[in-house]
Order: sequence, then structure tokens, then C-alpha cells
Amino acid sequence: MTTERDKMLAGQLYDASDAELKTARKQAREKIRNFNQEVVDTKRTELLKSWLGSTGENIYIEPHFACDYGTNIHVGENFYANFNCTMLDVCEIRIGKNAMLGPNVQLLTPLHPLDAEERIAGLEYGAPITIGDNVWIGGGAIILPGVKLGNNVVVGAGAVVTKSFGDNVVIAGNPARVIKRIDNEMGEI
Amino acid sequence: MTTERDKMLAGQLYDASDAELKTARKQAREKIRNFNQEVVDTKRTELLKSWLGSTGENIYIEPHFACDYGTNIHVGENFYANFNCTMLDVCEIRIGKNAMLGPNVQLLTPLHPLDAEERIAGLEYGAPITIGDNVWIGGGAIILPGVKLGNNVVVGAGAVVTKSFGDNVVIAGNPARVIKRIDNEMGEI
Amino acid sequence: MTTERDKMLAGQLYDASDAELKTARKQAREKIRNFNQEVVDTKRTELLKSWLGSTGENIYIEPHFACDYGTNIHVGENFYANFNCTMLDVCEIRIGKNAMLGPNVQLLTPLHPLDAEERIAGLEYGAPITIGDNVWIGGGAIILPGVKLGNNVVVGAGAVVTKSFGDNVVIAGNPARVIKRIDNEMGEI
Repeated sequence: MTTERDKMLAGQLYDASDAELKTARKQAREKIRNFNQEVVDTKRTELLKSWLGSTGENIYIEPHFACDYGTNIHVGENFYANFNCTMLDVCEIRIGKNAMLGPNVQLLTPLHPLDAEERIAGLEYGAPITIGDNVWIGGGAIILPGVKLGNNVVVGAGAVVTKSFGDNVVIAGNPARVIKRIDNEMGEI
Repeated sequence: MTTERDKMLAGQLYDASDAELKTARKQAREKIRNFNQEVVDTKRTELLKSWLGSTGENIYIEPHFACDYGTNIHVGENFYANFNCTMLDVCEIRIGKNAMLGPNVQLLTPLHPLDAEERIAGLEYGAPITIGDNVWIGGGAIILPGVKLGNNVVVGAGAVVTKSFGDNVVIAGNPARVIKRIDNEMGEI
Repeated sequence: MTTERDKMLAGQLYDASDAELKTARKQAREKIRNFNQEVVDTKRTELLKSWLGSTGENIYIEPHFACDYGTNIHVGENFYANFNCTMLDVCEIRIGKNAMLGPNVQLLTPLHPLDAEERIAGLEYGAPITIGDNVWIGGGAIILPGVKLGNNVVVGAGAVVTKSFGDNVVIAGNPARVIKRIDNEMGEI
């Protein structure tokens, strides 16, 4: 049987008021509160490891973190996210190793129909976010549903990333565009 | 007698250090804390209904919500705001029915004089925000003082909305511009 | 002897995992929690005065405030920052008198090498932010490392300020550009 959760993760229209999904979000809200109130760094990291879909050994997220489920978030080794990270994970969010996220970064997978009648009828959908290795995402940047970023990408602070980009680029702006190809220099983003 | 509160709501220059307004903001700060610390969803919704200017029956705001007063916020039936919504309501914020706000959305009504001497003298003013029915506002979008949005408007994530727009448009960018007229298709914002 | 802290403040590459710096950040996290949980305004202000690098007499920051150290933040007389201000102060952040910061403003001094190998090796650096007197920074604006702003500058809501600007201008957009020279009029930002 195809559940609403199956449809959600597959990027199909699904009913967010489904009982299984509501229970899962309720559990996530409790974990969010526990995470953000926990003052011991190592305990916060243990909470993440037992909660998120998968993580590396070395992972650190500052409070206040917020997400829809958590279980659909997969981050690689050496993951760091600064203050107030928001990840809406109705579809999978996959991030490679050595990621650095600045403060107030948002990774958003949910979508709603553009047609108002369809939208207010309550069906939603989403699209996964896939991010390569060694990515640096500047403060306040927003990554939209369906975006794929390659390896070594640098996302400028405040960028709104509406489409996918390959390896070794610096992107910035709203909407984000390539502002530099990366070779071996130091730079200010 | 015209009070500072009257002037504020009318969009006239007013003194924010007025005793009545300070007391009202202090009460709002307490309600904000209570709201954000409350773990039971239904209790959070009851708090909103007894606090905001007016609401529909079905209203849901995720923590952490923040506002100036709360009493100048009017939202219609089926209102949903995701994490970390900020509404500065020195003038009225009116939102129709079936609104969906993504995470980290800001609705800002306060203004300060552009002239530095006037500004630092302490007088402020504002302009109301009026939003129609069936609006979807994407994550991190900012709606500025005086903006009116029509029905069925979709605001792209990270948009900075500096002027008013009519019905049935998708707006995005900084400053926001129309990027699509809406008919009956699905779309990714 | 040149410490990692010395290098950091001088804008040189430094090792953020240095023991002295880790201890300082840990202490700052505790102060952040205390500040954000404190319900009495005057106690919050006293905490800031005993914590930040230097402040004027009259200073007010709404919760939730977040920073790296706090000790590298210097604000002048009559400082006001609204909800959810983020200041990453690996280099000095200096703000003149009579500053007004809207909600969700970010002042970010940290930088990482653009080259992925260098970046993931763990060395970081930064550049100071210097802001003049009588500045109004709109909600959600982001000020990037190395930026200097003159006196009487108004930064539009949602602006991403990537370079320096002189006195008496209104800047807005991503990246921010001058949209108006200021004389004596009222204006809406």
C-alpha cells in the first residue's frame, strides 16, 4: 500500500493532515525543543545522531534548529550549521561531507500548488535538495525545493538559490547566479 | 483626545516611548514568551485567539513567533505560519483566509524618518499591510510597510516586497517583481 | 607570542579549534542563553554592558540575540536591535551612536577560504564591520565582512550589503546599491 509518507518522499501530491505524518511531526517538534534547550554540546550532537536520517561522526548544529521531520535529513562527515538553521524536509535533504552552513540558512523542500483552489484543498508536494561535498553556504541563504549543488560550491550570504549549479562555483544574489569560478585564491563572500 | 496609540494606528508620527504603548509592548513580550514556551498546540492556538486582534477558528503559528503588539494583527480562517514568523504591527496587519506563510517570514509595518535628526529624535510612524485571500508567502520573504497584496498571490521565498500587487500573480526577487501570472498549473516557487 | 585570538582579530588565517577561543565561545553561548531567557529588560541590558566589548549607557537588544564572542562588539550610545539579531564577531563590529536595527538583522565578520581544500583544513579568517552614527538597518538585512558604512545611512529591509558606502545614502537590494541620497524628506524603506 502506498502511504501518504511514501507519496511525500516521492515528490507526489500528499495529504499533510495524514495521521502518521502528524504524529511524526509532533515527535519532531519535541526533539526540536529538546535539542534547542540542551546546553551540553555533546548531548546535542547525540540527539542529532539518533534523530536525523543519517550523519557522520563529527556533526555540530547550533541552536535554534528547526525542521519538519529530521528523519529525512542526511548529512555527511564534518557537518557544521550555525545559529537558527531551518531545514524543511518533506523530501530528502542530502548534504555531502565537510559542509559549513552560516547562521539563518534555510533548506526548503516543500511546495504547494500555484493554483489557489488546489492549494487550499490541502494537498502538498515537495522536491529533494541534494548538496555535494565541501560546500560553504553563507548566512541567510535560502535553498529552494529540487535544487542540486555540486562539490566545492560557495553560496553567498543572502542568496536565494532557485536552480541547480555544478561544481566549483561561487553563486550569489536573488535569484542566485554564478559570480565566480573557483580555482586557488582566497575570497570574500 | 488623540493618544499616541491613535496616531500610531493612523500612520502618523508618534512617540514610541509613550507609557500606554510601552505597557502594551511589555504585555506582548510576555505573551510572546508564553506562546513560544507552550508545548501543547491547542493551548498555543487559544493564546493566539485571546491575544491577536481577530482570527478565524482554525489558526496555527509555529514557534518562535514575535510581534510588537499582536492586537493589531487580524488573520482570517485557516491561517498557518511556519517557524520564526516576525510581524511588527505598529499599524494593522490584515490577512485574508487560507493564508500559508513559510518559515522566517517577516511582515513589517514600522517606518522611521529618513532624515537622521528627525529619526534619532524618537518619532516613528508606520503603514498598514493588507493581504488578500489564499496567499502563499515563501520562506524568508519580507513584506514592507504599506504593501497590499491581492487574492491568490504567491510570494517567492526570499522575496522583498516593496510595493503592492494585485490578484493572481507570482512575485519574487529583491525587490519583488511579477514573475508569472497564475492560471491552473502546478509550479515550483 | 601571537595567539590564535590575535590572528583572528587581525584578520589573519587562524585556527578556530584553538583552546582559548573554544573556551571563549563556550562562555559566550552561556551568556547568550542567559540573555535570551532573562525576562527583566533592565537585567538584560546589564548583562550586555558587562559582556560586550563596549556600549553606551542606553542600549537595548530584543531576544533572541546570538553572537560568536560578544567581546568584539562595540556599540555606541542609544543602540537598539530588534528581535533575532545575529552578530558574528570574529573580527570587531563597531557601530556608532543612535543605531536602529530591525528584526533578523545579521552582521557577519567571518570568512573561509574559497578553495575547498584550504577551507576544510580548518583555517578561517574574518574582516571587521564598521558602521557610523545614526544608522537605520532594516529587517533581515545582512552586512558582510569588511563592510564600512558612513553616518546617517539607511539600509533597506532584506538588503545584502557586500561593499562599503559613505554618508547620507539609502541602500537596498541584493547586492545593495544606492537607491537614494538623503536630504530632509520622509521616506518609506
